Amino acid sequence: MPTVRFEGPDSTNPLAYRHYDADRVVLGRPLRDHLRLAVCYWHSFVMNGADPFGAPTIARPWMGGDAMAAARAKADAAFDLFRVLDVPFYTFHDRDIAPEGDTLAATLANTRAVGEVLAEKQAATGVKLLWGTANLFSHPRFMAGAATNPDPDVFAWSAATVKTALELTHGLGGANYVMWGGREGYETLLNTDLKRELDQMGRFLALVVDHKHRIGFQGPILIEPKPKEPSKHQYDFDAATVYGFLRHYGLEKDVKLNLEENHAILAGHTFEHEIAVANAFGILGSLDVNRGDPLLGWDTDQFPNDVPQLTLAFHEMIKGGGLTTGGLNFDAKVRRQSIDAEDLVHAHVGGIDVCAQAFLAAARLVEAGKLAGAVAERYAGWDRPGHAALGGSLEEIAAAAEARALAPSPRSGRQEMLENIVARA
Amino acid sequence: MPTVRFEGPDSTNPLAYRHYDADRVVLGRPLRDHLRLAVCYWHSFVMNGADPFGAPTIARPWMGGDAMAAARAKADAAFDLFRVLDVPFYTFHDRDIAPEGDTLAATLANTRAVGEVLAEKQAATGVKLLWGTANLFSHPRFMAGAATNPDPDVFAWSAATVKTALELTHGLGGANYVMWGGREGYETLLNTDLKRELDQMGRFLALVVDHKHRIGFQGPILIEPKPKEPSKHQYDFDAATVYGFLRHYGLEKDVKLNLEENHAILAGHTFEHEIAVANAFGILGSLDVNRGDPLLGWDTDQFPNDVPQLTLAFHEMIKGGGLTTGGLNFDAKVRRQSIDAEDLVHAHVGGIDVCAQAFLAAARLVEAGKLAGAVAERYAGWDRPGHAALGGSLEEIAAAAEARALAPSPRSGRQEMLENIVARA
Amino acid sequence: MPTVRFEGPDSTNPLAYRHYDADRVVLGRPLRDHLRLAVCYWHSFVMNGADPFGAPTIARPWMGGDAMAAARAKADAAFDLFRVLDVPFYTFHDRDIAPEGDTLAATLANTRAVGEVLAEKQAATGVKLLWGTANLFSHPRFMAGAATNPDPDVFAWSAATVKTALELTHGLGGANYVMWGGREGYETLLNTDLKRELDQMGRFLALVVDHKHRIGFQGPILIEPKPKEPSKHQYDFDAATVYGFLRHYGLEKDVKLNLEENHAILAGHTFEHEIAVANAFGILGSLDVNRGDPLLGWDTDQFPNDVPQLTLAFHEMIKGGGLTTGGLNFDAKVRRQSIDAEDLVHAHVGGIDVCAQAFLAAARLVEAGKLAGAVAERYAGWDRPGHAALGGSLEEIAAAAEARALAPSPRSGRQEMLENIVARA
Amino acid sequence: MPTVRFEGPDSTNPLAYRHYDADRVVLGRPLRDHLRLAVCYWHSFVMNGADPFGAPTIARPWMGGDAMAAARAKADAAFDLFRVLDVPFYTFHDRDIAPEGDTLAATLANTRAVGEVLAEKQAATGVKLLWGTANLFSHPRFMAGAATNPDPDVFAWSAATVKTALELTHGLGGANYVMWGGREGYETLLNTDLKRELDQMGRFLALVVDHKHRIGFQGPILIEPKPKEPSKHQYDFDAATVYGFLRHYGLEKDVKLNLEENHAILAGHTFEHEIAVANAFGILGSLDVNRGDPLLGWDTDQFPNDVPQLTLAFHEMIKGGGLTTGGLNFDAKVRRQSIDAEDLVHAHVGGIDVCAQAFLAAARLVEAGKLAGAVAERYAGWDRPGHAALGGSLEEIAAAAEARALAPSPRSGRQEMLENIVARA
Repeated sequence: MPTVRFEGPDSTNPLAYRHYDADRVVLGRPLRDHLRLAVCYWHSFVMNGADPFGAPTIARPWMGGDAMAAARAKADAAFDLFRVLDVPFYTFHDRDIAPEGDTLAATLANTRAVGEVLAEKQAATGVKLLWGTANLFSHPRFMAGAATNPDPDVFAWSAATVKTALELTHGLGGANYVMWGGREGYETLLNTDLKRELDQMGRFLALVVDHKHRIGFQGPILIEPKPKEPSKHQYDFDAATVYGFLRHYGLEKDVKLNLEENHAILAGHTFEHEIAVANAFGILGSLDVNRGDPLLGWDTDQFPNDVPQLTLAFHEMIKGGGLTTGGLNFDAKVRRQSIDAEDLVHAHVGGIDVCAQAFLAAARLVEAGKLAGAVAERYAGWDRPGHAALGGSLEEIAAAAEARALAPSPRSGRQEMLENIVARA
Repeated sequence: MPTVRFEGPDSTNPLAYRHYDADRVVLGRPLRDHLRLAVCYWHSFVMNGADPFGAPTIARPWMGGDAMAAARAKADAAFDLFRVLDVPFYTFHDRDIAPEGDTLAATLANTRAVGEVLAEKQAATGVKLLWGTANLFSHPRFMAGAATNPDPDVFAWSAATVKTALELTHGLGGANYVMWGGREGYETLLNTDLKRELDQMGRFLALVVDHKHRIGFQGPILIEPKPKEPSKHQYDFDAATVYGFLRHYGLEKDVKLNLEENHAILAGHTFEHEIAVANAFGILGSLDVNRGDPLLGWDTDQFPNDVPQLTLAFHEMIKGGGLTTGGLNFDAKVRRQSIDAEDLVHAHVGGIDVCAQAFLAAARLVEAGKLAGAVAERYAGWDRPGHAALGGSLEEIAAAAEARALAPSPRSGRQEMLENIVARA
Repeated sequence: MPTVRFEGPDSTNPLAYRHYDADRVVLGRPLRDHLRLAVCYWHSFVMNGADPFGAPTIARPWMGGDAMAAARAKADAAFDLFRVLDVPFYTFHDRDIAPEGDTLAATLANTRAVGEVLAEKQAATGVKLLWGTANLFSHPRFMAGAATNPDPDVFAWSAATVKTALELTHGLGGANYVMWGGREGYETLLNTDLKRELDQMGRFLALVVDHKHRIGFQGPILIEPKPKEPSKHQYDFDAATVYGFLRHYGLEKDVKLNLEENHAILAGHTFEHEIAVANAFGILGSLDVNRGDPLLGWDTDQFPNDVPQLTLAFHEMIKGGGLTTGGLNFDAKVRRQSIDAEDLVHAHVGGIDVCAQAFLAAARLVEAGKLAGAVAERYAGWDRPGHAALGGSLEEIAAAAEARALAPSPRSGRQEMLENIVARA
Repeated sequence: MPTVRFEGPDSTNPLAYRHYDADRVVLGRPLRDHLRLAVCYWHSFVMNGADPFGAPTIARPWMGGDAMAAARAKADAAFDLFRVLDVPFYTFHDRDIAPEGDTLAATLANTRAVGEVLAEKQAATGVKLLWGTANLFSHPRFMAGAATNPDPDVFAWSAATVKTALELTHGLGGANYVMWGGREGYETLLNTDLKRELDQMGRFLALVVDHKHRIGFQGPILIEPKPKEPSKHQYDFDAATVYGFLRHYGLEKDVKLNLEENHAILAGHTFEHEIAVANAFGILGSLDVNRGDPLLGWDTDQFPNDVPQLTLAFHEMIKGGGLTTGGLNFDAKVRRQSIDAEDLVHAHVGGIDVCAQAFLAAARLVEAGKLAGAVAERYAGWDRPGHAALGGSLEEIAAAAEARALAPSPRSGRQEMLENIVARA
């Protein structure tokens, strides 16, 4: 399949970019460097369409047969898709790229062996690793958690696994290392010592941070919040929860967040909210740009297709300074009925174009400055010289308030007018 | 109306306690001291049955007429209900007990004037104040927040208001002081500087904590988390979010939580989860024991009537050491169609009995020790002497794991068996 | 304020239409006739910004004072906004236009009296009535339902009220008559005879249909489904539920639906789903084009601002033949903090433009025919001549299936490719 | 394992019934005949603990190896559990009891072959079949629906499959036949002809009803509503939706409902609501007595453990005349971490006891008659002789209302008092 090219908004080619002109310079940088798009290994090359009520529907040539040979065939297919889409980055879990072995040692050896294949392919293609991570949730040994497992042997297994995945990520020049704790939570408090499990998770993260420094990995460790599913409750519920956790264990300097829209809405938040919270605490790392279905209670991991919604998210992202080591990762899968290989290409092409459109719209909002101006004007009273509100004690502020016979009069929040500005961008 | 008395489980009197035997000693203390039950002023004496689609349905003799005279009549009615129910505590907002005046000074004077009435009634009856709080959400001036308002004059107004309410609470011997930030949040990020608002809220809370120390108020300041409603997003989303906020502003030593079941489920949590989180971080203060409707998306503030659910909550409460300065506050209102005064009594009598039943069940669970034993046994591996998991670096743990050829085997979580133990209590 | 005009997409005038070119012909008709836009009386002229936690924030010149004089001033303001926006239609409840009187007779007289004012204004301006309705939910007498009230006197009151509102709608040349049953439901099954209440509601609706025929009203009666709020459960839960109800009482020929996006998502549906269901059963009447917040559990009634979402809804609307007597009613209110009169104009201008953009996009999808073609192709197997699947008995179909050694092979649903087609429109 | 016996509420044996005394006569019949408890094949003998993020955790002796031999071993295990629990009924899908073959004919032959094994076991043990059903959702051929599939060959395959399953159910003396349409719905309207699919589903159901009559099967066909999962939208959304569907296709005389609590809450309803709706339309068939988690958005299918909630459901069930051909089926699975065989027994023993407790409480409520009395009294006004509300035209009712100068006064709904009555049962 030929590489997908930018052909402009009037193209009738279903497999062309209409908006993603990678070299277009906006806000001082090419679009490519703003978006830092990444294809993920798991949904695109591992996902087989099984769901809780049905068997696999999707078969790919590299599925089945000898596990290590299949892993190499999968890597070939993956880098071919990266070429077709012309994306600069990819992401993986250790178990996406390499199979479980008979023992811990054999499993880690598999990871390292396929890692060498990936290193060669990166060198040959120029595609880079946005982040690596370890799958600490699929195998039954993790059913009661990895770091938070009641069995310390699972903690140790997880430690060895993350060490290898982090080192591989480092070796492959990965820009970040991600941790998603799908099983770090509980099914019922009746069998759970919540405080002990948080301590275990804090200790684990501290070990990883320490190791990152030891090996000289420059990128941040990123935690990916999700409130539930598969666990009844996951400890990394949302951005604010993870921030509290990091503060409790003194890790807020070394750890940032990888945020996802679908996880945000499962937690009751918009995507832009999670980004704004992360920015407020200085811990925004990277983004997963799938979309969820607000009417369904599970992670649907669909490709993005709503420009207005993503515009709001990217607006917050730009306001916070944009992505540095992070990127936009398509943690998105084709639907179970989209069984053709071509569906995978359509899905990414559409998603990439939606990201480009939304970013360009957000950039226009920032450049026009109307939103920023309206916000600044709204809080302008706080910047009056000599204002007493933030100085003095409660007593002093109260005394001044009574003395001045305060009578604050409400002012319009102008929400609809501001929404119109966004809609017009 | 006569005082409601304990008559035992076989009573056929609809207005008797079947389970709330205040003097019954369990876990070393009388039930009265474990539960520390409180009736709230707002729902019981102010709520008039209006909803977003309908006018008031509930009229009470003390509603209407001269505002200060009505406030005194309301206080009479309130202390009469406390007597009827034989509860040891009550709670209020400043605006529940006293009306808004024409100016800030007049309003604060009203608060203090009715405060004197309450002091007399407390002395006469022995009923005590569990906590006081200030209403910083009903008046239009607070429509864009109190501490987080874009207008610093509203911050100042709020500071004066809280100062007076805190001092009144102190004067009345209140055991805690509560802050609920219903308008401390946003409707749209488009007009909001989230970080600035968090800073304002942090500053405000620090001022209150400082004033508490200055006046010698011994009780804790309690924040009441709620994720949304009336705001689209409230900053005090849930227990974990507030903990992160307290850490960010260095207030975790002075501030605790007042948790509510209805707020918990709006945030996607069980009540017992919120209690367990607060215990893990050492910030459990007090509980609002209403119930919400998990199928409705707003605060229904119904009286509790599900013993199994409340048993789980009280079990976590007892595990964390039980209530000290806190209590169980009925932040609950009769339904809009329950327009008779008698409905108010039925509601509280039923709610009190449900609390008593649930506490007795939870206490039995604690005394039997089966749940605690099962949990201890589940994590027992961590207590093996010389276990390496928590010591050493990631490298050392990984090396040991590979060397030992770890093969952790999953063990049953036994959830159903543990649920049976609870069901049987 | 001058009338808002179409100035094209490049206009920088915040109060101009960029997309709503009323005379533009698309799919054979001017946009004005496709959209049939209507401003509602209640949110725009009655709503005062009160919410369950706060007092009114919005004051308008026509609020307060003598009730009938205020009603006339309100009518002046309403028709002035219709002129500013240049919309062809409006909608009202009887209680929006005229105040409650001291008695039933006085109340009905008020309705008729203001009706005469409206008739004059319609004649003078050419603005038409899309639909009228009666408010059977705000007054305390309706707290336990109107038609479904346990008290037959409330049923009778409601009958008289609807009779007057229907006759007024008829007299004003209204195109439809709407019924929304906000209190036709229950708070608890413990005090409810569900079957009896459904029978009462069926009887009531039959009476209204009968009266419509008697007076020669040509437009349809429309039921507006909503699942909950204010009631815990409302009988008109969603489109499918109302259809079953209409069939049960034999009213499916005379009654259609007025659907709303916010009500759809409260019921767990997309707006386009509700429209598709109504079309499948031949009962689509009219649409309320507000938007809800999928993360909040109540009716936020916001102005629409998401073109992609509304495009899907209008696509289903056009597929079903478009609106005939119905229209697009802005059952939307400015936010509680949007207290300036200008906010009302910004909100409608933005909403109208979003509707125009979405309709134009949906029309392009229909004209291009790619979606319709893909759907037709997907089911093409059913149109093979001589196909046995729909003919014959289960036995015959099964016998043929076994005989033919069926081995159906799954085909891609192509969802992402189809979503791209929509995104590009 | 010995058979579980009734030992009374004070038993300390974890595997004894404390409340389920099968022979205890209540409301004129033994508890066994009221409850008609059934164990399901799929969750208890097929479920392996896999979830969307994890591999199987549960291994049973009968899993793996030769498929037909495994099916026989599974049947042995199943009937042994029925004996241990002393339940009178069981339920199955065709694919639970027998494996897929290489062809349609081979698959149907497998079904029939294991059917003979089950017949022998039923005869030997006295355990009876509550209902059978066909799995039309797991195999990839059903990914786009069974009856509603765009491919008519899948309709034909499904027809043959249901014919065999229905005949087997008939042959085994099954009391009902169930249809659950997990894939009868859509993922996106963009590729769906909703009306055509409803017509296909109506036609399919009509064929099944016709075949039932042909073969002389006396039990009802039951549809099991579920709103979503696995499909984005399922056509059998809830009880009211299915009723409308049955009316549209003229099938309401032959088809009833199998209702489930977890499906109810996913649709936004309580379990008791769904039962009340089914009773109102005369289509209550049978119940699945699992529980869902109201804070999770998917089918958790947990064993029931909340007596107050189930009491309300059983109260509606008894009010509607109780179960006739239906029963209480444990469509419930042990948690993924409950990997021991013993967990399966604990789960059922607890669930059975909870059902017994709840039924006894509901029966006490019915016997006491207080709730029924309160309801009757509430609507008593409708029974006044000569009352005009339901007679006459709208005009006549309105005229009478005005003439009588109606002034209905609201009466308390007494919800809290009624809730206390339930809590005390």
